[in-house]
Amino acid sequence: MTSHPPHGHAQHGAENARSVAGHAAAVAELLRPLRSADREETLPLSRALGRGLVHDVAAPLSLPPFANSQMDGYAVRSADIDDGGTDLRIMPPVPAGSSPQALEPGTAAPIMTGAMVPAGADAVVPIEKAVPDHFLAPGHGGTVRLPATAPGTYVRIAGSDIAAGERALAAGTCLGPAQLGLLAALGIPEVAVHKAVTVLLVTTGDEVVEPGGTLTPGRIYDSNGTLLETAMKQAGLSVRRAGIANDNPAELQDLLRAQSQGADLIVTTGGVSKGAYEVVRQAMADQPVEFLHVAMQPGGPQGIGTFDGVPFLGFPGNPVSCLVSFEMFLRPALSALLGAPAPRLPLRARLGQPLTSPGRKHQVRRGSLQPDGTVRLEGGESSHLMHALAGSNVLVHVPAGVTELAAGHEVEVWML
Amino acid sequence: MTSHPPHGHAQHGAENARSVAGHAAAVAELLRPLRSADREETLPLSRALGRGLVHDVAAPLSLPPFANSQMDGYAVRSADIDDGGTDLRIMPPVPAGSSPQALEPGTAAPIMTGAMVPAGADAVVPIEKAVPDHFLAPGHGGTVRLPATAPGTYVRIAGSDIAAGERALAAGTCLGPAQLGLLAALGIPEVAVHKAVTVLLVTTGDEVVEPGGTLTPGRIYDSNGTLLETAMKQAGLSVRRAGIANDNPAELQDLLRAQSQGADLIVTTGGVSKGAYEVVRQAMADQPVEFLHVAMQPGGPQGIGTFDGVPFLGFPGNPVSCLVSFEMFLRPALSALLGAPAPRLPLRARLGQPLTSPGRKHQVRRGSLQPDGTVRLEGGESSHLMHALAGSNVLVHVPAGVTELAAGHEVEVWML
Repeated sequence: MTSHPPHGHAQHGAENARSVAGHAAAVAELLRPLRSADREETLPLSRALGRGLVHDVAAPLSLPPFANSQMDGYAVRSADIDDGGTDLRIMPPVPAGSSPQALEPGTAAPIMTGAMVPAGADAVVPIEKAVPDHFLAPGHGGTVRLPATAPGTYVRIAGSDIAAGERALAAGTCLGPAQLGLLAALGIPEVAVHKAVTVLLVTTGDEVVEPGGTLTPGRIYDSNGTLLETAMKQAGLSVRRAGIANDNPAELQDLLRAQSQGADLIVTTGGVSKGAYEVVRQAMADQPVEFLHVAMQPGGPQGIGTFDGVPFLGFPGNPVSCLVSFEMFLRPALSALLGAPAPRLPLRARLGQPLTSPGRKHQVRRGSLQPDGTVRLEGGESSHLMHALAGSNVLVHVPAGVTELAAGHEVEVWML
Repeated sequence: MTSHPPHGHAQHGAENARSVAGHAAAVAELLRPLRSADREETLPLSRALGRGLVHDVAAPLSLPPFANSQMDGYAVRSADIDDGGTDLRIMPPVPAGSSPQALEPGTAAPIMTGAMVPAGADAVVPIEKAVPDHFLAPGHGGTVRLPATAPGTYVRIAGSDIAAGERALAAGTCLGPAQLGLLAALGIPEVAVHKAVTVLLVTTGDEVVEPGGTLTPGRIYDSNGTLLETAMKQAGLSVRRAGIANDNPAELQDLLRAQSQGADLIVTTGGVSKGAYEVVRQAMADQPVEFLHVAMQPGGPQGIGTFDGVPFLGFPGNPVSCLVSFEMFLRPALSALLGAPAPRLPLRARLGQPLTSPGRKHQVRRGSLQPDGTVRLEGGESSHLMHALAGSNVLVHVPAGVTELAAGHEVEVWML
């Protein structure tokens, strides 16, 4: 979007457009330096949530570390018990956390769930199958009658979850609660992860007003800033908002120079179309930045390069185009390079209604996944439909080459 | 899990067990006071990410606020153009952000994407269909030849996304990037949300060792603390870790009293089984707390009530049981009461292999959703399989009453 008097050729359409895959590869290449040894840090587990693992982690111990009981009951040598049941002498109980003595032949040891199965014992008989079917007070001595039990019954074997030395987690894994819980179970208190990426985010346009400001006719409130800032935060990025830049290229350059120190990436919105007076294009005139068209709808116009050496991505000005640009290019590149955020899970879903698509472009529609496994399209193709986006939970992919799809056709969707 | 000498009746099985739905309702009832006016706060949009909306939000303006152009081109009165095309006099250009004069009959105004369509104009002809097919320098005057165009072409009508006064978001909506972007587009800079819930999290057990500590025989590292802390953080809770409590009930009471000030909820792990010496049961002896069995596998033993007036949930001691308890009871209750976290999305998936289930319990298995739409079970039924959990991305539901399912059977899965 621009607020300057237009002239010169306007070049629309996807002639000579770069493919989605081609641009995705270019973004990954631009950001490759973010995967470097000086951008790694070691964090305690609870602070590593949502980060990507730098190295493979091998299990330093087996899980479970020792054979333990799956039930409250009696640890036994299964060979001691006849088919009709056998009376066994009761030994001292085995509490969880203790290291019990070996089980002598002809005896049974009361054992609690999770407690170490004594050496010699090979099965646990649940308390409710014992006679009597309750534990006797300690020191009581006496005997218990137990039924025949197959070896291994209710015993969790050491290493049955993972054996010492096996790979517990692969480099590049995004660390969620289960992965961090596994590291804790393995006794690993801290972990090497890739540092969070810091983004300087700038929305542009003379027509754009900060929410809460006064809207004069012809102007609109800035939604791109909030939309991208929160999408980036949700993806684990550290976001610096530079506010709204007007359409003066020199002022935009000054703003970028003043605020890009320490930023790993600059992202702008708007000002990247093919008109003659687009502010981002102009501000980047002396920088190694390419402006091009990706064969994608929405989100076709894109800028990519570096500004004073800082990686730069220029997203288009409409909010849906911004989010699609983030989801299609920036987010996957970070997932692939740094293991975080976790990649979007691609699912298959049947279209709830027919759609049309420009055949030469990859179309990204917004939709909501229904309980019956179909996807309902929310809003039309147009990139300004913010309310429709807010009612969506998936992106719907219509590959290049497809011009129409019938209701019921299966499509790939990405869960947002 | 307990480390005390056992005696008394051990009661296993699901006799008189509460249903999953019954316990979910009890947890929701326990937490209902968290939805109250004094637990609401007004936050700027970027700080409201992941929070639940207190009130419906009506659109204070239409989106788009005014009819605007979808293309770079010429705004026209469509009736001015004959079937064979018509020469129209070129007016001053309409930049985005400006409030143009009405379009006189017989004229065309250069207009940029997003700019307000002048009064009188009812269509936009894209620049590439004009003769000449580029904008002339301002002040040049002259005429442009344009083809016949249907009314409404390339015009985004005011209110076509949402009309002023319509409900933009419903109370209880979890605010993600798209919802916050919509509020920004509507010019709303801050929003009333439910406060984040503060949880005091205590893991118990003499046998449990902090990760990084020395593991003596019979002991295990605490994974519950890390697993639940990070799952709760991911769900937007504020988590206070009280470390690992030993199996002395008086010390656990002291710890809870010392650390529960300001907490909205206490969650413990372990010590809730039906043995006589379970530490959490003992510490709660004088409190209105119920210990019961839910007809669910894993995660059957549960405690629920209040400790010195603070809502309390006692989860069982195995890590998978803890996570399943959180996902089945606490998380859904918070989603329903406070709009945050967003509810898990239930999907249907076909089993990649057969399974068996105890018919009288609702079984929750862990699995990974495959690209072909099937779900692969990760690990067996057992609640200690932390490595298998770390390889999963869904919970697989096998309702009570089902004892076996064949490969290919469709089940409900929840995306983690």
